[in-house]
Amino acid sequence: MGEDIEEFFINTKPVKIVVKLDDQFTDNYASAISTEVDATYSHTVRIIQRLEEFEIVETERSGRKKELKLTEKGKELAEVFGELLSRF
Amino acid sequence: MGEDIEEFFINTKPVKIVVKLDDQFTDNYASAISTEVDATYSHTVRIIQRLEEFEIVETERSGRKKELKLTEKGKELAEVFGELLSRF
Repeated sequence: MGEDIEEFFINTKPVKIVVKLDDQFTDNYASAISTEVDATYSHTVRIIQRLEEFEIVETERSGRKKELKLTEKGKELAEVFGELLSRF
Repeated sequence: MGEDIEEFFINTKPVKIVVKLDDQFTDNYASAISTEVDATYSHTVRIIQRLEEFEIVETERSGRKKELKLTEKGKELAEVFGELLSRF
């Protein structure tokens, strides 16, 4: 039921990716995030590209890896999304 | 942009219908709601049926019409959805 109602109202992967990016216990790399939200790596990367276009996420090179950071706008959204997920 | 980002994260019609049902200036009948959210009448009715299954909406006969009411759970969701729509 919880899952059903979530999917009726929201696109769960993009919402959960934003929430996970705000979670200090998750590494902010596409690979770690994709595992956390149970999406394929390529689907996760496509979502992250859209999040960059929307100025919700910024990326920063850290060695060979790209670290993901929420912008201010992204942090505000993450807060409301977190609240929303807790209501389902 | 606002529209795009909304559709990337949420299923806009179900979310907006719940928000409109919480708006005291909108008549709580499927016909009025469908106009407000710019959905067809039949699409609106299908969404309302799901909302009843999720115990977000209750219906009450009022003469020949069915009046729609948010449940407590529905009111809570409407509040978070309203907050969310204002962030996009």
